[in-house]
Amino acid sequence: MKLYTYFRSSAAYRVRIALGLKGLDYEAVPVHLVRDGGEHRRPEYLDLNPAGLVPTLEDAGQVLTQSLAIIEYLDETHPQARLLPEGALDRARVRELAHMIACDIHPVNNLRVLQYLGHVLGATEAQRNAWYRHWVGLGLATVESRLARDARTGPFCHGDRPGLADCCLVPQVFNARRFDCDLSAMPTVCDIVARCEELEAFRRAAPMVQPDAE
Amino acid sequence: MKLYTYFRSSAAYRVRIALGLKGLDYEAVPVHLVRDGGEHRRPEYLDLNPAGLVPTLEDAGQVLTQSLAIIEYLDETHPQARLLPEGALDRARVRELAHMIACDIHPVNNLRVLQYLGHVLGATEAQRNAWYRHWVGLGLATVESRLARDARTGPFCHGDRPGLADCCLVPQVFNARRFDCDLSAMPTVCDIVARCEELEAFRRAAPMVQPDAE
Repeated sequence: MKLYTYFRSSAAYRVRIALGLKGLDYEAVPVHLVRDGGEHRRPEYLDLNPAGLVPTLEDAGQVLTQSLAIIEYLDETHPQARLLPEGALDRARVRELAHMIACDIHPVNNLRVLQYLGHVLGATEAQRNAWYRHWVGLGLATVESRLARDARTGPFCHGDRPGLADCCLVPQVFNARRFDCDLSAMPTVCDIVARCEELEAFRRAAPMVQPDAE
Repeated sequence: MKLYTYFRSSAAYRVRIALGLKGLDYEAVPVHLVRDGGEHRRPEYLDLNPAGLVPTLEDAGQVLTQSLAIIEYLDETHPQARLLPEGALDRARVRELAHMIACDIHPVNNLRVLQYLGHVLGATEAQRNAWYRHWVGLGLATVESRLARDARTGPFCHGDRPGLADCCLVPQVFNARRFDCDLSAMPTVCDIVARCEELEAFRRAAPMVQPDAE
């Protein structure tokens, strides 16, 4: 398997964690999102991934994009260390938590959105940072609320094993810290993230230990 | 089943289509996102859905949020009229198309984001419309590219039956038209949407025929 990745991409980080939790080896192909106007905008990359986003996974000659679709695919094709639970209601809960992050927080704070705010709308750095913190604060408060009052929350987002929701939560919290977001009202989120960060699969997926880290 | 919905919410529209394709009856509970400062901000609604977003589904005493998690749940619990195909690669493809819309287009153009642009950043109506069209144009061009060059595209996004990707595509195109986005470079997208709109399940889910339509 070949993963097109950027060390700081939160979506690529999710997939790196999932691959690690399943113990799957892969070749990392770095795609630099900033240097030279962005390697993700080159024709050969757009041919693989017309959205020009990371990650992209190549597996057995097939090209897959969209981090959550990739993780569900890995879970269906490599049943070890299941990332989604068994029952339909529990699966819905885990997907709900994942989508709260992958739909409601991350896309609004993506690099290209911040660039549009600056370049097209003339937002200052302070305004862009406030924007970032606004959506993270709103989104993670929702995740905290869902986690804190559901008995299915365990040491991890769902029960006693890390899964799809944890794959999304850890990169989002990494980003939140990078932008100095206040996480003091989110003890459940912070506890779960601390527990994840002790695990080898999460440690090896972290941005700063990637081969392309700066 | 009870669906908390707003006629113009693209995420609620997706779930209404899915319920219709499966022939499932439900009670629609309208949640007005604009009137009186937004009914989705009332404590009783936030108690159900702490994100304050629509849709929310109540089924057998359980509360589910996040449109794609709800649709996957409906597909797992009501196997008639499958919305996801059988094989893992095909499922990944359908989820990829769905997430291209549900993650990369819709959240960036959500009502609350447009409100922030106006109220906090002082963006004019023209700037907000340009923002909207920018992300729709970029996102739907990617969807078009994926659809146009894959033999698995049929009369619908995947093969000869409507599914999860179509549930996402039709509401997104409805919104795009509402904001006068140029779809002339997206013939595959427009063909599929036209075909969907002939079907009862899509017609009955459309915003303008909802009980709360204005």
